[in-house]
Amino acid sequence: MGGGATDPVDRSAQLATLETAPLGPYLLFLGDTVEQGYAKTAFGLCDWAPDRCIGELALPGATVSTGIPRLSCREAYAKGARALLIGVATPGGAIPQHWIAPLLDALKAGLDIVSGMHARLTDIPQLAASAEMLGRRLVDVRVPPAKIPIATGRKRSGKRLLTVGTDCALGKKYTALSVARALEGRGVDVTFRATGQTGIMIAGAGIPIDAVVSDFIAGAAEMLTPDASPDHLDVIEGQGSLFHPAYAAVSLGLLHGSQPDMFIACHEPGRTHVLGYPDFALPSLEELISETVALGKLTNPALLCVGVSLNTSGMSDQAARQLIAAESDRLGLPVADPVRGGRTFEQLLDGCQG
Amino acid sequence: MGGGATDPVDRSAQLATLETAPLGPYLLFLGDTVEQGYAKTAFGLCDWAPDRCIGELALPGATVSTGIPRLSCREAYAKGARALLIGVATPGGAIPQHWIAPLLDALKAGLDIVSGMHARLTDIPQLAASAEMLGRRLVDVRVPPAKIPIATGRKRSGKRLLTVGTDCALGKKYTALSVARALEGRGVDVTFRATGQTGIMIAGAGIPIDAVVSDFIAGAAEMLTPDASPDHLDVIEGQGSLFHPAYAAVSLGLLHGSQPDMFIACHEPGRTHVLGYPDFALPSLEELISETVALGKLTNPALLCVGVSLNTSGMSDQAARQLIAAESDRLGLPVADPVRGGRTFEQLLDGCQG
Repeated sequence: MGGGATDPVDRSAQLATLETAPLGPYLLFLGDTVEQGYAKTAFGLCDWAPDRCIGELALPGATVSTGIPRLSCREAYAKGARALLIGVATPGGAIPQHWIAPLLDALKAGLDIVSGMHARLTDIPQLAASAEMLGRRLVDVRVPPAKIPIATGRKRSGKRLLTVGTDCALGKKYTALSVARALEGRGVDVTFRATGQTGIMIAGAGIPIDAVVSDFIAGAAEMLTPDASPDHLDVIEGQGSLFHPAYAAVSLGLLHGSQPDMFIACHEPGRTHVLGYPDFALPSLEELISETVALGKLTNPALLCVGVSLNTSGMSDQAARQLIAAESDRLGLPVADPVRGGRTFEQLLDGCQG
Repeated sequence: MGGGATDPVDRSAQLATLETAPLGPYLLFLGDTVEQGYAKTAFGLCDWAPDRCIGELALPGATVSTGIPRLSCREAYAKGARALLIGVATPGGAIPQHWIAPLLDALKAGLDIVSGMHARLTDIPQLAASAEMLGRRLVDVRVPPAKIPIATGRKRSGKRLLTVGTDCALGKKYTALSVARALEGRGVDVTFRATGQTGIMIAGAGIPIDAVVSDFIAGAAEMLTPDASPDHLDVIEGQGSLFHPAYAAVSLGLLHGSQPDMFIACHEPGRTHVLGYPDFALPSLEELISETVALGKLTNPALLCVGVSLNTSGMSDQAARQLIAAESDRLGLPVADPVRGGRTFEQLLDGCQG
């Protein structure tokens, strides 16, 4: 265990703090992309953080647009942008040579650069040298912070809510964002805590939890959700699933380090097997809830399921309403689809405030 | 989840193979150490892999000796050594400047260099250049292999046994080594699979599982224990504990990826709390066994506890014998201390062959 188990210095270390200056606001960089599918990140940012998206910048030949104003780096800076966000993917995950000049322009105009691509900005010598000289940040959001302490298991002040799921990619991020926004609207002192790259870009801060070395994963979750005032609520983006044959360790480390007081169980009705793993059946919501309580109580014995979030995007209004009502009756818990909102979602929020 | 969940290429990748040429046999490097406590690695190697330890090499001023022949690099090579193993720690984990010349000598004499120190051999330009030129390996055993695939969850051929524990540092490695050796003595086709640095040095191969990025931990365990003939047994060194507030994720990823058919539950009688975490009580052996079965059955529904290993090093012979008998009665399982061996250990081995 990396020497941590016998090295008291590691464990008694102060929780490191996340980079204090948040990322953005953003100028969305679209490269020369001609396929909308490659611009998922840019569209996601416009959907979830429109107030953080000042404009977009595309190279000649690009046909994709998010519909927000087209601005030069200088214009964007003047309007308040502080980072160029690479909002498109490339087929191999690399940064093409002809992007370097516009990226250097962004640095010169006063913008940091934020990327979620596989290739690291800091590995490109011209960008690294220019950023160093100009005092700008190159932020690869797939890269976790350098100094993550071993988890202490110490109970922290403030409240925490985690979204957990029966599988990957079925609404844990969406649910956490929706709940955080809605509670903020109710006047709750709440912070969305991002654990994946898109979430980090939306929030402007966070830790890519699945990129953390195994020994430090619970420590990273502790670092992400530090001590807070007693009525402050962290709403933490869940990752993976405790029932996933490849990613359960990520989910468990996040659960243990987060020490949540509450969780929302997320599921997509109709999904029967782990995405891409046809031999692995999904657990029932009851199994997910009882397993999360059983494992999560190690670091927070008071852990409670406050409700269920169903991703009913594939269903008709009526069918979704009926299913939500039936599941709520069956489980004896608030059940809602945050996208549909409404009375059931308000009841789910009530539970998060309870 | 690092894109793995949506990228079929990752999942269908062939299992990468471990470095094919095993490490060693070794010349143990003791530096100029004057405190026996710093030479734990060297003594551990002499205890567990005496046939792989050809000799020792110390610098002027050293007062520590393992008792095996003192040899120069050339003498050691002539006697079959193929790697210099750094068998001592330094206070800061760094490689002192005055070690560089003897390490370069080792490379020239035909030896690889193997290190478990925090500082990486490959980060020392003189060593890197010389090793490159001479075709030698610099092996930092804390560094996992470069290409670890995402876990597939696919059932593999052959049999697997994992040691699990109520805590860190109470005999999981020792138990796995003892069981593997003893079964080999019975003629079983068995391989000890190392998951920590000392184990890797003893075995000459392995993966430092707690240094693997979280997304890949189950994949690393799959890679470590590949398909084998139906009667082959992998005995896998466990790590951490499912009940550890910092390291449970490591234990779960190792459990899921190993897909063990059998496990041995390890415990140190008298230890009541997690080492260094006085607020965390250890689970009972019953809790450890039922939790391991509950979580492990995700990737191997046939998972079975075949016995218990007790570290009774702090007890008298008689007290240990009585406790072993009482625990065996209470749990209805073979219970033994592999260090003490005897009839109870033979019964534990019988269970591993069952």
